[in-house]
Amino acid sequence: MLLIQTPRNALRQNSTSSTPRLRPTTLDIPGLTKSKVSPDGRISERDVGSKLIIIMVGLPARGKSYITKKLARYLNWLQHDTKIFNVGERRRLATHHQDHIPNLNGAQVAANALLNTDQEGPPIPTLTLPEPASPEPIAQHSKAAADAENDAMDQSADFFDPNNKKAAQIREQCALDTLDDLFRFILEEGGAVGILDATNSTLGRRKMIIDRIRERIGHVNVLFIESVCEDKHILESNMRLKLSGPDYKDKDPHASLEDFRKRVAIYAKNYVPIGEYEEKHNMPYVKMVDVGRKVISHQIRGFLSAQAVYYLLNFNLAPRQIWITRHGESMDNVAGKIGGDSELSPNGHCYGKALTDFVTLKRQEWELYQQAKAAHTHLPPHPGDHTPPNPYVELEGDSNRNFCVWTSMLKRSIQTAESFDDEEYELKQMRMLDELYAGTMEGMTYQEIQSQYADEYAQRQKDKLAYRYPGQGGEGYLDVINRVRPVIVELERMTDHCLLITHRSVARVLLAYFLGLRRDQVADLYCPLGMLYSLEPVRKPMPH
Amino acid sequence: MLLIQTPRNALRQNSTSSTPRLRPTTLDIPGLTKSKVSPDGRISERDVGSKLIIIMVGLPARGKSYITKKLARYLNWLQHDTKIFNVGERRRLATHHQDHIPNLNGAQVAANALLNTDQEGPPIPTLTLPEPASPEPIAQHSKAAADAENDAMDQSADFFDPNNKKAAQIREQCALDTLDDLFRFILEEGGAVGILDATNSTLGRRKMIIDRIRERIGHVNVLFIESVCEDKHILESNMRLKLSGPDYKDKDPHASLEDFRKRVAIYAKNYVPIGEYEEKHNMPYVKMVDVGRKVISHQIRGFLSAQAVYYLLNFNLAPRQIWITRHGESMDNVAGKIGGDSELSPNGHCYGKALTDFVTLKRQEWELYQQAKAAHTHLPPHPGDHTPPNPYVELEGDSNRNFCVWTSMLKRSIQTAESFDDEEYELKQMRMLDELYAGTMEGMTYQEIQSQYADEYAQRQKDKLAYRYPGQGGEGYLDVINRVRPVIVELERMTDHCLLITHRSVARVLLAYFLGLRRDQVADLYCPLGMLYSLEPVRKPMPH
Repeated sequence: MLLIQTPRNALRQNSTSSTPRLRPTTLDIPGLTKSKVSPDGRISERDVGSKLIIIMVGLPARGKSYITKKLARYLNWLQHDTKIFNVGERRRLATHHQDHIPNLNGAQVAANALLNTDQEGPPIPTLTLPEPASPEPIAQHSKAAADAENDAMDQSADFFDPNNKKAAQIREQCALDTLDDLFRFILEEGGAVGILDATNSTLGRRKMIIDRIRERIGHVNVLFIESVCEDKHILESNMRLKLSGPDYKDKDPHASLEDFRKRVAIYAKNYVPIGEYEEKHNMPYVKMVDVGRKVISHQIRGFLSAQAVYYLLNFNLAPRQIWITRHGESMDNVAGKIGGDSELSPNGHCYGKALTDFVTLKRQEWELYQQAKAAHTHLPPHPGDHTPPNPYVELEGDSNRNFCVWTSMLKRSIQTAESFDDEEYELKQMRMLDELYAGTMEGMTYQEIQSQYADEYAQRQKDKLAYRYPGQGGEGYLDVINRVRPVIVELERMTDHCLLITHRSVARVLLAYFLGLRRDQVADLYCPLGMLYSLEPVRKPMPH
Repeated sequence: MLLIQTPRNALRQNSTSSTPRLRPTTLDIPGLTKSKVSPDGRISERDVGSKLIIIMVGLPARGKSYITKKLARYLNWLQHDTKIFNVGERRRLATHHQDHIPNLNGAQVAANALLNTDQEGPPIPTLTLPEPASPEPIAQHSKAAADAENDAMDQSADFFDPNNKKAAQIREQCALDTLDDLFRFILEEGGAVGILDATNSTLGRRKMIIDRIRERIGHVNVLFIESVCEDKHILESNMRLKLSGPDYKDKDPHASLEDFRKRVAIYAKNYVPIGEYEEKHNMPYVKMVDVGRKVISHQIRGFLSAQAVYYLLNFNLAPRQIWITRHGESMDNVAGKIGGDSELSPNGHCYGKALTDFVTLKRQEWELYQQAKAAHTHLPPHPGDHTPPNPYVELEGDSNRNFCVWTSMLKRSIQTAESFDDEEYELKQMRMLDELYAGTMEGMTYQEIQSQYADEYAQRQKDKLAYRYPGQGGEGYLDVINRVRPVIVELERMTDHCLLITHRSVARVLLAYFLGLRRDQVADLYCPLGMLYSLEPVRKPMPH
């Protein structure tokens, strides 16, 4: 009869017993918190109780993978090691569809999914990024997969028929193997959050998963996230998106759609939505209806869960553009000094003017393009339409959205925005966008630092992301991530365009989020003065 | 057929028309953002679309006022001017029960409600605060109230009978007058968030409110917050709490409880929970079930709403203690210098030792007291029990909770915690708790600042809260509030005890939150070295 059952209470042990005492699951923020068990602010091996396993739930085509990838990208960016474990990928592997299997790496997949520039859109400046190192594949060949390979099976609806015994067995084994990968990540590879991306639409499957977690890990936070589509247009649009996904690529669209509908119908027969059972058993869950239109959260526990839920509460599918650039050249740039608060150089003022003209032009082009697109959009989409519209576009019926221009509170950033007409653009200064504060090194050149503080310089070179400049108030990249976080949540929450005119470290941190960069990529991202990045969310087909 | 209808779209005007164009409702954070319309980061008069009206919904004894007061305290602390408008207060005024009416001031009431030390608890150190200036009453005498005063009416269940025409008329007038006060606050007094605290349990009443808002203010964010109790124990406990409230104080408890139940039954007959109607009409709402056990949020729009919902997601009723103190005396303290990162003085080390012994003793006393209390707790409470238990205590059945000790990352704070046994206490360092960074004034004495930077010194004296120290990275109180915010949310979220060993400005900011201090009180709060504050949430009877 526990009213609010916390994991701690569910299993409190005498601290002298051999079972380890469960630590409180309070906040750990890399770089900002420090304790004996977690000197770098990451969740330590010992602290499994603070880790989080997320179990996705929902019928196919409900946007589970979209949510999963966005969430993983956000948590990885906050430096909580997060990985997605996708059962569908393993299933396709087990049934020999290897040619369609991308190497799965949570962050990298998310970046690809979210930041491919919209190919159909108006020409926009290209994003130049250093070549990413090849991500490690997570779906290693299991025995079951190897066995199954001998008789490759088609992934048509028949495969999902419960009466197809052979297929059912493969599907079960795939789920178990994927779960084992997730456990390895949490227990042996230092992972903080493991996400199981699958339909998990029956109560039986969900109970099996919970039992296995309790048996293998014991006490760890578990959060179910269910995605539900009540809006017929979103659902139809999601379904058609599948036609260009790995199961149906290069097949007849009409037959494929029919097959996919059948497959969903099979799942739907045994589908038990999250709710009654979970509430009776004090199980934490989040149910998202129509991508953030309505969110039900139940018994949310622990810092990581709270962070995840907060993020899920704040996103939308509105089409729009996010632009990121550094300020124009400043007098300190000319002198090669870091930090400071100098004015723009004449060159810098020119950049501000050119930026204004360019963005104004691109804004007009975008609006014209959206209007044209809306005119040719059909909801429900016409048969054979492989690039279904974002339902938001059509229903919104208004592409003339606001355009925010956000600068830091430093002169060189504010001056770069000086040509924007404040009747047409919403100008705002934000302290969160200020340059990284270099403590006692403010106003020095890198050369001076290297010769006068060789130790500090070397330490910084060794791990730029974790490095913090000495002196009271001195910052590092992790501090910047932390203060930029509210800006990211705000960018996700709002539906307006936004141009951010900021500084090198902050631009890198912003781009690291949008591109899902790996830890070692953030602080070295190529990000020169005068480069303008344009980001636009697009929907890409994803495996179910 | 709008999928995600934003207020902006609902009424976009041509920017050349005479109707003011609606600004995007993006984040405004006092001290951290700046724009032409909002130079100090507060929502400007012109920006009514960014303001927020919260309408509470729920039967009596569902904890509405509790939620309201906590939320108002949080938003005021974040420097978003928030005020509660309570219809029950006005009703009591209108029916001549003036002797029971406290002066209502959102922040102040919240502080009283939450931070009265628990009189039944073990002796704990007393909180010393500067005398608060008397809060302004918000319930001014209206004409209706004056009319009604002539025939004072009893607030028994009869009064709430819809067939009691005279009473119904008074109740209606009270609701309208209270709403007018709220409009005045938003439109004329610079308020950012107005909260209407009343049952608003019928669809008719809610429609009337919305119509009146649209008619009087036009476009403003409206958020409904409904509180529901499914847990019988919480409900019973809440009901008994009413017996010591203003309507039933000094009356026979048995008869009072019967009368109150009747009153609730009358409301319940016409009660329409939030849901279907609101979803059909794209109206944003939050439904809280059993104080945070389950939270349903729908169409949350705008920065302020998102902040409010995030806060509501993260609180609980667990009994526990929060301790706040400054570090022990440091070498810089001895020298009178501000800032820096010096070691503790011998005196400072002594304080650390004494603090450890004292807190360890008090922790034991608290646990013994809770065990004794749990042994005498009856759920449902026995008749005549005026001090109903916190349902959490009984059902929890375990008072042996964890105890966190959080320090800043500065030496003087870390050293003050050095005597705590890390097997018994969860020690953690947090950069968010570091002292305010005084920029170029670091390491100076106040006297030096006064003589060398007379202008800065004078400016700081004029408005300490808004003042920011000069130099890159220099901070002010508003910066501290912003970086302490995640700590506050975490303290609300967790159920463990916590001792925070921090610095003057941060201690002031923490206490400002817990005590609901007014803006002008924060930066001057008396907070000397060696003072230890103990805070414990208690439930107090509140008017319905």
